Amino acid sequence: MGVSLKDIAQRAGVSLATVSNVVNGYRPVGEQTRRRVQQAIDELGYTPNLSARHLRRGRTGIIALAIPELNNPYFAELADAAIREAAGLGYTLVMESSGADRDLELLLLDGSRRHIIDGLIFSPVRITRDDVLARTGTVPLVLIGEGVYDVPHDHIAIDNVAASRVVVEHLLALGRRRIAFIGAGAGQDRQSAQLRLRGYREALAAAGLPVDAELVVATEQFGRRDGLLAMRRLLALDTPPDAVFGYNDLVAIGAVRAIGEAGRRVPEDIAVAGIDDIEEGRFSTPTLTTIAPDKEHIGRFAVQRLVALIEGAPLAPPADLHLPFRLEVRESTGPLGDRHRAVG
Amino acid sequence: MGVSLKDIAQRAGVSLATVSNVVNGYRPVGEQTRRRVQQAIDELGYTPNLSARHLRRGRTGIIALAIPELNNPYFAELADAAIREAAGLGYTLVMESSGADRDLELLLLDGSRRHIIDGLIFSPVRITRDDVLARTGTVPLVLIGEGVYDVPHDHIAIDNVAASRVVVEHLLALGRRRIAFIGAGAGQDRQSAQLRLRGYREALAAAGLPVDAELVVATEQFGRRDGLLAMRRLLALDTPPDAVFGYNDLVAIGAVRAIGEAGRRVPEDIAVAGIDDIEEGRFSTPTLTTIAPDKEHIGRFAVQRLVALIEGAPLAPPADLHLPFRLEVRESTGPLGDRHRAVG
Repeated sequence: MGVSLKDIAQRAGVSLATVSNVVNGYRPVGEQTRRRVQQAIDELGYTPNLSARHLRRGRTGIIALAIPELNNPYFAELADAAIREAAGLGYTLVMESSGADRDLELLLLDGSRRHIIDGLIFSPVRITRDDVLARTGTVPLVLIGEGVYDVPHDHIAIDNVAASRVVVEHLLALGRRRIAFIGAGAGQDRQSAQLRLRGYREALAAAGLPVDAELVVATEQFGRRDGLLAMRRLLALDTPPDAVFGYNDLVAIGAVRAIGEAGRRVPEDIAVAGIDDIEEGRFSTPTLTTIAPDKEHIGRFAVQRLVALIEGAPLAPPADLHLPFRLEVRESTGPLGDRHRAVG
Repeated sequence: MGVSLKDIAQRAGVSLATVSNVVNGYRPVGEQTRRRVQQAIDELGYTPNLSARHLRRGRTGIIALAIPELNNPYFAELADAAIREAAGLGYTLVMESSGADRDLELLLLDGSRRHIIDGLIFSPVRITRDDVLARTGTVPLVLIGEGVYDVPHDHIAIDNVAASRVVVEHLLALGRRRIAFIGAGAGQDRQSAQLRLRGYREALAAAGLPVDAELVVATEQFGRRDGLLAMRRLLALDTPPDAVFGYNDLVAIGAVRAIGEAGRRVPEDIAVAGIDDIEEGRFSTPTLTTIAPDKEHIGRFAVQRLVALIEGAPLAPPADLHLPFRLEVRESTGPLGDRHRAVG
């Protein structure tokens, strides 16, 4: 217990800063030096797992990013930025999956890891605003995504209604008139699905077009297979859509596959767009038109707000923070094709 | 300190098992009950973050899966299985990224989190066998992937040389003779790249074909963009390849995109195959031929071996364990096309 970083530095014959870098992992240290420090640590019986700085303040130096599904690359891409930002501020970020399970989300919300992590960045999909208001846990919390709004915590997201309107307006500007939406929530309140559906409806209404109920397809999940199966149903309609807006890029990519399997062309017969700007859609054939949220900004900003909370820095009051997005027009939403025009 | 789960059960008027489920998060508990238990916990001042069972044994109940890159879906898919297995055994699995950075890998190896995690499943790409042999950390460790072999730790992987041979033999059986390999390591010892290159060479040698050095392309990283850029170089050759074997599916998907952008067809002009069987390749156009490692098996088995180590269960000695894989033939490796035949 009495062993300090200074003791280790003396024993190893290196600077205190070097010991700190080895112990905390803030900065790479040459291997020979690292081994010398490690030897001193072992000889003196110091347990170097926790940053001394964090330890003195009763912290672990670990923050968690809890997400609904590891399989959605959107979160991996956002996490990349968050990990870099956390490392720069002296924290290690670990990722945890809630599996989009309500009970697990409630456990996370109430701080079931409160002695392991210093703070939580949380993207919930099943809990409600009331759950957050009733929270008893005290672990610093920053919310991201569309799970809940209007709560006394920082909440970072894009404006999903506005983003969806932008997508549908783009499809309308291309002359599409039967625009489908794949990924309305099925018997559950995935808030983001509701918001994106609302944007879709608003854009159609603003264009004076009706919402055709058969063009709105609910899905259980929001992956590629869900998009594929929903698109097959749309293709079986008497009058299939001439454009599809997917809840996210994965759903849209599944829809593209279904259209191709049915012998129809994207975008000549049916245009397809999604939301998230995952890398997959920049390399797919066709490349995918999408809404690009500023993931780098969201990831870094969430960490900055969380660390400020953890370290008690003066902060603006908690707020719903809308970060920018942009429409990325790619191959999947080109003009209607000749064949289609000839038939239509 | 004197507050027990029994005290909480009495105060809340529920069973000990229910309190345990709430505290440990092992099993979902109805919300009203959960709130009652939480109220008792708060009133009695019990800190319920750590499982009592783990705490009694000086454990945290957290195990980590450390991977080189979050952006490779292969690991997200493997982690899904590992998370489920860990939960079934009473552990929470968190993911940590090493960013394929040697210093970070060394820190992870030496147990920089030894008081936060009970054990580590580690997929290293930069450290060597000597690093593992020189390890001073004592956190239970299971290695996965191709980073290091022949060390006194469990090591779970597929036989990469054999897997690569299977891919190349498949391409040879389709009549392809100029088979390229994209993803040889560039000035670094990514062991898996060496093993896959070896399998490629062995298969060509067994078929009596020379290895044409201009068909082996080194890449800095192993993502879609690396595959795309490497493929552009191959397409610029006087005699481009008639087949491409990518280090992994991401590299192969980048290659497919480059071939399409150059106005050539997959598989009619150039067949493409990868390794990993990520979901993306089952929905891409064309769908991607690949080696499917049994990710479910690898993820679950790694957790089982690790938890046995943590809990001191009798174990077989540490071993290099090769798990099964299979070749998934899809659209990207169909027969040579007519146009190509006419020209060739």
